[in-house]
Amino acid sequence: MKSITSAAYSVHFNTFAFAALNTHLEKASYSKVFILVDENSHEHCLPILMPAIEAAYDFEVIEIESGEINKNIATCTRVWEVLSGLDADRKSVLINLGGGVITDLGGFVASTYKRGIDFINIPTTLLAMVDASVGGKTGVDLGALKNQVGVISQPQMVLVVSEFLNTLEERQLQSGFAEMLKHGLIRDRNYWNTLKNGVGADQIDTLIHQSVGIKNEVVLQDPTEQSLRKILNYGHTLGHAVESFFLESAEHELLLHGEAIAIGMVLEGWLSHNLQGLQMDDLTEIKNTFAARYPKIVFSSSDIDGILSLLKFDKKNSHGNINFVLLKGIGNPVIDVQIEENLIRQAFAYYSE
Amino acid sequence: MKSITSAAYSVHFNTFAFAALNTHLEKASYSKVFILVDENSHEHCLPILMPAIEAAYDFEVIEIESGEINKNIATCTRVWEVLSGLDADRKSVLINLGGGVITDLGGFVASTYKRGIDFINIPTTLLAMVDASVGGKTGVDLGALKNQVGVISQPQMVLVVSEFLNTLEERQLQSGFAEMLKHGLIRDRNYWNTLKNGVGADQIDTLIHQSVGIKNEVVLQDPTEQSLRKILNYGHTLGHAVESFFLESAEHELLLHGEAIAIGMVLEGWLSHNLQGLQMDDLTEIKNTFAARYPKIVFSSSDIDGILSLLKFDKKNSHGNINFVLLKGIGNPVIDVQIEENLIRQAFAYYSE
Repeated sequence: MKSITSAAYSVHFNTFAFAALNTHLEKASYSKVFILVDENSHEHCLPILMPAIEAAYDFEVIEIESGEINKNIATCTRVWEVLSGLDADRKSVLINLGGGVITDLGGFVASTYKRGIDFINIPTTLLAMVDASVGGKTGVDLGALKNQVGVISQPQMVLVVSEFLNTLEERQLQSGFAEMLKHGLIRDRNYWNTLKNGVGADQIDTLIHQSVGIKNEVVLQDPTEQSLRKILNYGHTLGHAVESFFLESAEHELLLHGEAIAIGMVLEGWLSHNLQGLQMDDLTEIKNTFAARYPKIVFSSSDIDGILSLLKFDKKNSHGNINFVLLKGIGNPVIDVQIEENLIRQAFAYYSE
Repeated sequence: MKSITSAAYSVHFNTFAFAALNTHLEKASYSKVFILVDENSHEHCLPILMPAIEAAYDFEVIEIESGEINKNIATCTRVWEVLSGLDADRKSVLINLGGGVITDLGGFVASTYKRGIDFINIPTTLLAMVDASVGGKTGVDLGALKNQVGVISQPQMVLVVSEFLNTLEERQLQSGFAEMLKHGLIRDRNYWNTLKNGVGADQIDTLIHQSVGIKNEVVLQDPTEQSLRKILNYGHTLGHAVESFFLESAEHELLLHGEAIAIGMVLEGWLSHNLQGLQMDDLTEIKNTFAARYPKIVFSSSDIDGILSLLKFDKKNSHGNINFVLLKGIGNPVIDVQIEENLIRQAFAYYSE
């Protein structure tokens, strides 16, 4: 499968991936190689990665606890301290092996350790493969507020190896699939049509490649999110608020990122229908597609109050206004739409119908 | 006084400084202006800054405690949380008003808040004016290890207003003067000769301008410190280790940064004489110049052990070797010299004579 070239690095797929890694490690002559894992990728993915590495290096494995709840500055501090204690210098490299928490946090830790060391991302979840693999966003949460602290920083390379997906539970796969559906909604109606009724296991490699390609094409045109790149936030303005609310709520179980933005895409679909002319048929198709795949959440009216109060913290806002990405049609997004609170409550009513 | 143009911004001096700030604030249309201060710059410098600002903005003042001991991630977290709590968005700007702790930490906080907001540095100490005003280094300490966490990130502008120096104690002025002496040692013998016997108050504006110019010329040629920029670390390899050791030692009083690198410059001067042909006369001149200005520190042999054990953490090292900047002559530096521990002990003996 053809490598996809992003800003200053490439995304390598499957059989080409480990070969590219070995070539890079040989050429780069790092002083030391650190591998960041959580307990899951430590158990299931590290045994796949290690035999594939041919270069003769000292490796040190650093394990953090899995889960969005640990994607915070306290975890970063522990990793910085471990790196420092193990004499990581400016010529060290950090390989991030895991889901989005590992690649987001590991990318931030590497980009700020001694003002920046190299890092390589090996996403092991479908979500991280299609979403975190290109774009250079790194960062951690601040309390319940998602990705409040971070930098834009590019890895040396990204390896997408679908073998790692065999280590995932179905719920994790579905979470990643939500971002792929989003790529169809914001950029390519044909792609949406391919995905909406489900796909076979034999198609997943091709579809991951297509999703990475769509995201890469967008971020290359607008790396710093001045305009076009904002379309990737479809479903995320409300989705992030829902995710944050569930993260700090004692009464609710945690939602996975894809589950939260699936809700966000239905809510923002309704707003799109009401404000931007998205056809009723298309709205229904969006709602039914997500309803078939993701658990329906019951929101109390105090839940909705809590979610709305988190909205103002979303990074996509400026000057106190809340900007949404909406759809004029499937594959046809519009950015910077401002929405009144009352309409958002109506969108929740539609989701709950 | 002519503005000095650095990477993507300018350093403006004295009467031109506030005019440039007002022009910038007017043009930039920020959503909100935050000013980071410590208790000293809050009391002494903010009353000078505020009347000079003409633009009609909402200002929020954020105060942190002064001192290197507070230049850490815990303080960053408090500032990130305050920014978030005050609804700072991506179009906000942070003005860092204070010494090197404020500009280093504030630059890092701004560069990582929501993946980066604008910041403006207004150094109020001599050290920060001549050292932190150009080069884009931001960051904080990790325990006793200096500047272990940070990024290279450029401010929108830097204002050097020597009126702020009137708010400083003599010891603070001397600390900054050490960096100016370093600029002479690494780049310009004539400048060293001007400075070494002391300067009058009427000369300070011209000399600050000259020091900023020397540093800027170096960092523009090598922004990422691959080679030439390393010369700015003269005196810092051992100076940082001494500074870190005093920071975490219960028995010693804190040393100011300039006092620590003054010791480092004498130690590394002796190494330069022994390894790189620095003339004995020049070494004596260096030692006497610093001895006349800075308190002589008595190092016990266990102090020296402790300082040597910190050396391996210096950011300038890679592959486990400790690289020094030495002098072949005054104004004529050489980089990447590796030194045996035994010689460093002899350098301490020379300092202590």
